[in-house]
Amino acid sequence: MHSSTSSPPMLAVGRGVAERPRPRTPYLRLDVAVAVDRYRSLRALIGAAVHYAVKANPHPDLLGALAGEGCCFDVASPHEVAGALAAGARPDQLLYSNPVKSRHDIACAYADGIRLFVVDSLAEVRKVAAVAPGSEVLCRMLTSGDGSDWPLSRKFGCAATECAEILRAAAGLGLRPAGVSFHVGSQQRRPDAWAEPIAAAGGVFAELHAVGLQPWLLDLGGGFPADLEEGHPPLEEYGAAIDAALATTFGGRRPRLVIEPGRGVVADAGTLVATVVAVLDRGGTRWVYLDAGVFTGLVETLEEAIRYRITTTVGGPVGPAVLAGPTCDSADVLYQRNPVLLTLALAEGDLVELHACGAYTTCYSTVGFNGFEPLRTELVG
Amino acid sequence: MHSSTSSPPMLAVGRGVAERPRPRTPYLRLDVAVAVDRYRSLRALIGAAVHYAVKANPHPDLLGALAGEGCCFDVASPHEVAGALAAGARPDQLLYSNPVKSRHDIACAYADGIRLFVVDSLAEVRKVAAVAPGSEVLCRMLTSGDGSDWPLSRKFGCAATECAEILRAAAGLGLRPAGVSFHVGSQQRRPDAWAEPIAAAGGVFAELHAVGLQPWLLDLGGGFPADLEEGHPPLEEYGAAIDAALATTFGGRRPRLVIEPGRGVVADAGTLVATVVAVLDRGGTRWVYLDAGVFTGLVETLEEAIRYRITTTVGGPVGPAVLAGPTCDSADVLYQRNPVLLTLALAEGDLVELHACGAYTTCYSTVGFNGFEPLRTELVG
Repeated sequence: MHSSTSSPPMLAVGRGVAERPRPRTPYLRLDVAVAVDRYRSLRALIGAAVHYAVKANPHPDLLGALAGEGCCFDVASPHEVAGALAAGARPDQLLYSNPVKSRHDIACAYADGIRLFVVDSLAEVRKVAAVAPGSEVLCRMLTSGDGSDWPLSRKFGCAATECAEILRAAAGLGLRPAGVSFHVGSQQRRPDAWAEPIAAAGGVFAELHAVGLQPWLLDLGGGFPADLEEGHPPLEEYGAAIDAALATTFGGRRPRLVIEPGRGVVADAGTLVATVVAVLDRGGTRWVYLDAGVFTGLVETLEEAIRYRITTTVGGPVGPAVLAGPTCDSADVLYQRNPVLLTLALAEGDLVELHACGAYTTCYSTVGFNGFEPLRTELVG
Repeated sequence: MHSSTSSPPMLAVGRGVAERPRPRTPYLRLDVAVAVDRYRSLRALIGAAVHYAVKANPHPDLLGALAGEGCCFDVASPHEVAGALAAGARPDQLLYSNPVKSRHDIACAYADGIRLFVVDSLAEVRKVAAVAPGSEVLCRMLTSGDGSDWPLSRKFGCAATECAEILRAAAGLGLRPAGVSFHVGSQQRRPDAWAEPIAAAGGVFAELHAVGLQPWLLDLGGGFPADLEEGHPPLEEYGAAIDAALATTFGGRRPRLVIEPGRGVVADAGTLVATVVAVLDRGGTRWVYLDAGVFTGLVETLEEAIRYRITTTVGGPVGPAVLAGPTCDSADVLYQRNPVLLTLALAEGDLVELHACGAYTTCYSTVGFNGFEPLRTELVG
């Protein structure tokens, strides 16, 4: 869905610098090598199989590079299944993690060879049993999402007390109860956020063992952070905290582990490059109008949930600024409650870079609202 | 940007009914004749030239039908200019209403023959004077947005006290100061919302007359309502209130008038048709999962700003339900704070129709987040 060039020219930014040709803004500059490197770090962290969450950024070159490293994939629709398979993944490397899906979509995934599905209700178990017979199922357990910048609603997950019942029902319908899945919320800042759900999952495993079932898989979800404005503890602290929680709960009988990072793999690999359209004083507040905004990829700035680090190549003292996108929609405004700090010398035509933008930008872009094209990707290297 | 079929089969909805072939859901069923009819009503309301706001729904068949009726257009980007011209409009029927735009975009519009631009700052006046010399300019004045379901931020508009200064500066740079523009906020429920800005615009006109300028155009913006959940006063009340305010302010020297309806023309012409994927109990709350959601067109449900009327063909007693979309994003939830009332018999596979969805749905759809395709349009007739 995203266009790309194979070898874009590097940027020469800032005024007064001799400029080489540069891509038309706005665009996402994506460095696939950074994502691969991040994949390797996450792979080493706790020995879990890494299923990259395709929804974060489905660029085919990214999926191909990750598949080439042996990365597995977390998918949520037939189109994502197709993308992962086209990138070179095997069906047994795919985990279909959407807990509520249409029969049609389950059947498509099954036809493509997918045999591992997440469920969170008896109704979903019946659907999977009907159209994907014999498959493995993980039951998604509700968590609080505390400590996350993009917390979870009640949309997915059942209470821990229901998990064993749902997985027993799955076994009764010929499915294979693989284990438990949970998600602590995206951009999770608390390394200890996994401890409580791991303990709860341990309880579910014990219940299943007690009725003669043999779960073997624990899906620790995503939530691994990107390098946003407020920072986060080092990744190693996450690994240590999760490892300690696993030791406490499972001792020597640790299940096979899966993690589903999306932002944690690709966010830091992308930089959104935009151009200043205007700098205006609005009743004493400085407004910086960019050629990118809420409708061209920056949806996660709504409610100021995600605060990107922002840099320019123009120096000098800084001051607060509200950012606005290019559309004539009054909702196309970023950080009005808590303005960002940008150099006071910023002017029309200058470039602005938003960092850690590789996840949830190109894929959240509209089809072209107000005639402004979807956010393009330009690959580095 | 939107696909369509020339003659889709009509729907046969509900269980137990012999079904004819029906389009795959989700889609927007768009009846262009309804939009044309609404255009005629708005045209007759106060004798204003109607500039349909292309951003609300840029479907080429819709633009073509409106252009065929003599409708003018409100555009905000070179791509929207191209769409309106391709639909058969003349350049002098286009009003470029985006108050903050890049030099590149102004130059493109000028090259396409556009000669009427909205500005709201001295910086913008200088840009327009530089790349669209001799053009007419309207100055956008800030309003409160009170009474609107989708209110305006401080993104656009200057204080009434600044308008005359900006328009005088425009005249000094060789532009033609046409008059004043304002916008009372989308889905405006108060017919008297126009009175205060009309009075303020009258003050600006007087200031301009005092310095020898001759403004002739007043742009009353959009805000005309669609038939959403809470209803609205009849359109005639809007006409009467605006007419009275114009008489009070301008007496017999009424300027030429423009209105810029988007939702007011096309919202009621569209119905979003979705299929129930699952009905689940989540901690005592009924959740209805649909194959359409926030990322496939229903962005305006965020913060529950816009509440669509929702019907199904399944009868019986109703009860509250939270709606959820098909993606595995936990933000893809509609009306969690104030659930909607839907029949208790609703089940997997049933159709659900969201009414007055013709505006700000297909155009707000993502490029295909999570592998779910952008909202398609199926034309009626």
